[in-house]
Amino acid sequence: MSEASSLHVAFIGLGTMGQGMARNIAKAGFPLAVATRTSGKAEAFVRTLSAEGRDARAARTPAAAAEGADVVVSCVPDAPEVEDVHLGASGTAAGARPGAVVIDCSTIAAEAARAIAARLLEKGLSFLDAPVSGGQKGAVEGTLTFFIGGDVTALEKARPVLEAMGRRLTALGPSGAGQLGKAANQILVANNLMGVSEALAFAAKAGLPLTSLHEALTSGAANSWALEVLGKKMIDRDFKPAFAVKHQQKDLAIVLRTARARGIPLPGTALVHQLLTALEASGRAEDGTQALLTVYESLGGGR
Amino acid sequence: MSEASSLHVAFIGLGTMGQGMARNIAKAGFPLAVATRTSGKAEAFVRTLSAEGRDARAARTPAAAAEGADVVVSCVPDAPEVEDVHLGASGTAAGARPGAVVIDCSTIAAEAARAIAARLLEKGLSFLDAPVSGGQKGAVEGTLTFFIGGDVTALEKARPVLEAMGRRLTALGPSGAGQLGKAANQILVANNLMGVSEALAFAAKAGLPLTSLHEALTSGAANSWALEVLGKKMIDRDFKPAFAVKHQQKDLAIVLRTARARGIPLPGTALVHQLLTALEASGRAEDGTQALLTVYESLGGGR
Repeated sequence: MSEASSLHVAFIGLGTMGQGMARNIAKAGFPLAVATRTSGKAEAFVRTLSAEGRDARAARTPAAAAEGADVVVSCVPDAPEVEDVHLGASGTAAGARPGAVVIDCSTIAAEAARAIAARLLEKGLSFLDAPVSGGQKGAVEGTLTFFIGGDVTALEKARPVLEAMGRRLTALGPSGAGQLGKAANQILVANNLMGVSEALAFAAKAGLPLTSLHEALTSGAANSWALEVLGKKMIDRDFKPAFAVKHQQKDLAIVLRTARARGIPLPGTALVHQLLTALEASGRAEDGTQALLTVYESLGGGR
Repeated sequence: MSEASSLHVAFIGLGTMGQGMARNIAKAGFPLAVATRTSGKAEAFVRTLSAEGRDARAARTPAAAAEGADVVVSCVPDAPEVEDVHLGASGTAAGARPGAVVIDCSTIAAEAARAIAARLLEKGLSFLDAPVSGGQKGAVEGTLTFFIGGDVTALEKARPVLEAMGRRLTALGPSGAGQLGKAANQILVANNLMGVSEALAFAAKAGLPLTSLHEALTSGAANSWALEVLGKKMIDRDFKPAFAVKHQQKDLAIVLRTARARGIPLPGTALVHQLLTALEASGRAEDGTQALLTVYESLGGGR
């Protein structure tokens, strides 16, 4: 821990994912500075950490949080926010010392990640794109999977901080490769979600006992994380968000643009994107993605 | 075992699945009679079982196999064959004694299963539709999942025989319900396959290291049996059939007809069916379904 705790960390963005991730960094013993867009949120978060005896401070801007940091982590909505918190007037690059490693855990386009990496490099900062899989649960429990693009030396320097947040660090290549890996992840997540929605909408209409069927389906070649977790929620008609439709849609828009630019058509993923557009149109953009079931129910004339 | 071995069993159809299933019945101690369409195949199979000390005999026709049987099991390609082996001139109904339970493990339409059940009932025979999931591996190892439709009393009578072949018996309702459950299974299998094909075709074109990526993807919310097993084969470019494209296509044609009849559109499943039609057109109908990857490669202008 002594070596690890010698790394000072700044964390930008305390959303659904960021809170659990930042907390795990502090719990691992790293001195932590946090900054958020929402006024007062960083202060409240730091009060909780301080009550637990952690070394944490709130900063008014990303630049102020990054002062004295060896590793800067961000987890924000999309590319414009990533650019702003690192390269804006009060961004981390304005406060960080040369040689610091900037890690962005947001899901953004690979091209955007590469552009940000190049601009930070001009300022003497290393950049890793490190989007995650594992959801809020993984963020809280410190079991995230990181898809990592960027310089291997920077990764080795930041490794203890990443290991405080996740169970698996997968280096996939140069800047942008982490985002490409996350895109592959979202392609799978989307198609698996469609399969579960179609299977359960069909089974319900066919009058099958869904709980028994679910047990049988999860025991064989039809199984998936989506069937186990989202299928269970569909059967329970629990449409609360763990991963909201609007976030899935943002990610799929990135995936489809990226794939088109590389000349690889993704008809299945494009179809899920359209069906989720119908779901958004029905007023469920804030629901969990498992609400896709209701699109099939409406296509089939109701439950 | 003494109670179990009091049940005499007839088994019709010694294909990829049937051989393992029939062998497990004999190994569990049930006196077994087998019949197949292919001349000489039943005799060769029985010689192997006899050499292992099992109580087995070959019969020239399904009717002859069914003589004296308490439980009759069939595993054949499609509905016409199921109808023929049970209701044809030398079908099992012509040899079985009243009260025998007929179990069909083939994947056929629910409507066809219901019609066969009704005709067998007129002859004093019970019928269970019991299609399976788990593939050749599950058949050999006795770990199949059975989706079961039909009378519960018949199921209880036949249970020891089913338990010799599988690990999970799921009763889903009256005649045809087993086939509807298997249709839900095939919907999931098809969509998951599409997701794996799209993700890996994308990742390859993006230049990502596929083996590392596969490890990361299987550790989180993107995981599925299809990713673990078929994804691995795609990366190894192993297109040998465990489940052949032509069989998947037969099953999906049944699924789509059944769903349409019930008024539930399945756009994702329909899309996989079309992409697999392209795969058949490219000369790969006998390959394993994981060859779907090659359709994406051809759409994307090659590997």
